[in-house]
Amino acid sequence: KINPDRLWDSLMEMAKIGPGVAGGNNRQTVTDEDGEGRALFQKWCEDAGCTMGLDQMGNMFARREGTDPDALPVYVGSHLDTQPTGGKYDGVLGVLGGLEILRTMNDLGIKTKHPIVVTNFTNEEGTRYAPAMLSSGVFAGIHTQDWAYDREDAEGKKFGDELKRIGWRGEEETGARKMHAFFELHIEQGPILEAEGKDIGVVTHGQGLSWTQVTIHGKDSHTGSTPMPMRKNAGLGMARILDKVDEIAWSHAPHAVGAAGHIDVYPNSRNVIPGKVVFTVDFRSPELNVIEDMEARLRVEGQKIADDMGLQIEFEKVGGFDPVAFDEGCVTAVRNAAERLGYSHMNLISGAGHDACWINRVAPTAMVMCPCVDGLSHNEAEEISKEWAMAGADVLLHAVVETAEV
Amino acid sequence: KINPDRLWDSLMEMAKIGPGVAGGNNRQTVTDEDGEGRALFQKWCEDAGCTMGLDQMGNMFARREGTDPDALPVYVGSHLDTQPTGGKYDGVLGVLGGLEILRTMNDLGIKTKHPIVVTNFTNEEGTRYAPAMLSSGVFAGIHTQDWAYDREDAEGKKFGDELKRIGWRGEEETGARKMHAFFELHIEQGPILEAEGKDIGVVTHGQGLSWTQVTIHGKDSHTGSTPMPMRKNAGLGMARILDKVDEIAWSHAPHAVGAAGHIDVYPNSRNVIPGKVVFTVDFRSPELNVIEDMEARLRVEGQKIADDMGLQIEFEKVGGFDPVAFDEGCVTAVRNAAERLGYSHMNLISGAGHDACWINRVAPTAMVMCPCVDGLSHNEAEEISKEWAMAGADVLLHAVVETAEV
Ligand SMILES: NC(=O)NCCC(=O)O
Ligand SMILES: NC(=O)NCCC(=O)O
Repeated sequence: KINPDRLWDSLMEMAKIGPGVAGGNNRQTVTDEDGEGRALFQKWCEDAGCTMGLDQMGNMFARREGTDPDALPVYVGSHLDTQPTGGKYDGVLGVLGGLEILRTMNDLGIKTKHPIVVTNFTNEEGTRYAPAMLSSGVFAGIHTQDWAYDREDAEGKKFGDELKRIGWRGEEETGARKMHAFFELHIEQGPILEAEGKDIGVVTHGQGLSWTQVTIHGKDSHTGSTPMPMRKNAGLGMARILDKVDEIAWSHAPHAVGAAGHIDVYPNSRNVIPGKVVFTVDFRSPELNVIEDMEARLRVEGQKIADDMGLQIEFEKVGGFDPVAFDEGCVTAVRNAAERLGYSHMNLISGAGHDACWINRVAPTAMVMCPCVDGLSHNEAEEISKEWAMAGADVLLHAVVETAEV
Repeated sequence: KINPDRLWDSLMEMAKIGPGVAGGNNRQTVTDEDGEGRALFQKWCEDAGCTMGLDQMGNMFARREGTDPDALPVYVGSHLDTQPTGGKYDGVLGVLGGLEILRTMNDLGIKTKHPIVVTNFTNEEGTRYAPAMLSSGVFAGIHTQDWAYDREDAEGKKFGDELKRIGWRGEEETGARKMHAFFELHIEQGPILEAEGKDIGVVTHGQGLSWTQVTIHGKDSHTGSTPMPMRKNAGLGMARILDKVDEIAWSHAPHAVGAAGHIDVYPNSRNVIPGKVVFTVDFRSPELNVIEDMEARLRVEGQKIADDMGLQIEFEKVGGFDPVAFDEGCVTAVRNAAERLGYSHMNLISGAGHDACWINRVAPTAMVMCPCVDGLSHNEAEEISKEWAMAGADVLLHAVVETAEV
């Protein structure tokens, strides 16, 4: 069993870097704060006797040697970056939970045949740079690295340049590593485990995602002196499409969700009818055909709304992944571990995207989830109990040790 | 008659300061660019033999002496600040048109009994600091100066501090001046004059305005893992209210308009359901009871929408003025001038707010309008012809000289 106090102390220590405004964190990807968090993680890993690898996407790999020099490593990990108003556990629990299992194995003198590598993937959140899970995506060959380097944030700064600026662009070729297996511990970010009173979610599937960036062009004009029939109000077009997005998602309930979190209005002046609006629609479902249906309806209905209002509209897919079925062997290892440890558990479909979803394309992969209070995440008030963190890390330890073979 | 080439050259010269991105201007109030524009205007006024006064709100007063030392001055003017993506004429034509009539009077050796003062009012546009017409409002005793100084921009910088920083906070008590009359030349910013083929709008009334800032509080949460029934989507609430705003305005058509130009979404991340949205609804009508009805319905219907969605909502009035009836004597002077000069003209109700609307509370006031292409304003593509500018300035000259008495 892991040391819950040590895990908790590390979580609280990391949370001091890039504090938020309401008790959570703002440690967005490839910022100075991200760099600080990485340095702390590296120090902890080295203190635990690991060597650190760094690839060209800034993905970090802390390695604990195994007894068989030819055996592929078992990987564990998640991400240290946060939302702009994010919680202390989303991603961080998976990285520091991975570190905690190494520390525990050191304490107990456990040796494994396969090396174990704790990973921190760069830019999982996707706020500063779309898409989410950018660097695990490059690792898995989904995106090219050049394309990833060229992603721009809202100020026009490129991902590749910022990664270099903070000093965490490594030499190692991204994706060159081969994995025996990959396990990711993560908070659920939804309400099911807490509602069902279960300690552990055995994640069998992940729902798929589609991000469509919608740009509406109207005509900037005076809110006072432009007659109603002459208006080309891009903001009003956006409003009608947002209502339609909600309707489309509900039409597939409970097998789909949909919303827009990102909305920019131009020129954003009280007395100017918006001439341009850019927003991103997020649709998700465990069923690929449902995602495809929602995406198609957004384009058709959005076009109709724009045409009716004399607006120009463009749709661009800026992120997406298909629903995922995790590896049966790894999933079984997680379930067995929970069972063996006496933790209550249930199967789960992940509502969020995770680095594991991409890594699953190149290695046998599974996830362990623990509950979070009120299912709340992507909010500074995100909270978990020390007991939940402990259960998750215990299950991770057992699944990993079993897979890495003592 | 004024010198149309000289007027046009001055307009083009001023437009070089704070250029926009698409041929217009971004010379927002109390920015460095605003300071540069003021310095150029002051130099031109001094070259024309005027002395410059500056009050504590940064309002500028370029004075040409009259023959009667006891006579109150006739004021003309408008504003040099622009929208973030504004045109070259909105406001500027009224200030530089005022300067042009002084230059013409110098050329022709015209002496008037009453002094003539050309005015540049600070922060007419109201984008960086709500409300619009802030400094003419303080001049007319509508707002206190302390309240105006405390207005904050989006970065939290205070109006009073920024005015001081750019070096244009004067000593003179705001509103201490008494005016014999005030005339403002402005582009129409709407389509009527062009459609009717008229050179001059004789502005008899101005429609009233109400700005209500709406804040909706939902709950930031994950777009993927938060089930649809658990969402508190402040962005969706905003969308439904925007549609309602449109419906409310149309219900009074053609005697009302309504829209929201300012919309800020928090935390504005693609995978976070908006936890907070702040937007400003702009309602206008020439009829006070219509404005009051629209404002009241926004509050009732907005509250209903929020309640139905489990959202918290707050309404704050951040700007407003009642419909205006301009001074009959001054309006007649404008109409007579157009008639005498042979320019086609018609009565107009101003769709936009203007400094003249506040000055009308403390002095006999009227406005002269000239057409603008496609009625387009608050857009970098705002355009007028030199002939339209000339006609407007000619009428201004004649109305002012008649009122100032040769
Ligand atoms: N786990 C998580 O919040 N990932 C961000 C990507 C997503 O939006 O699902
Ligand atoms: N003329 C003008 O655009 N004034 C700004 C105030 C308003 O919104 O009407």
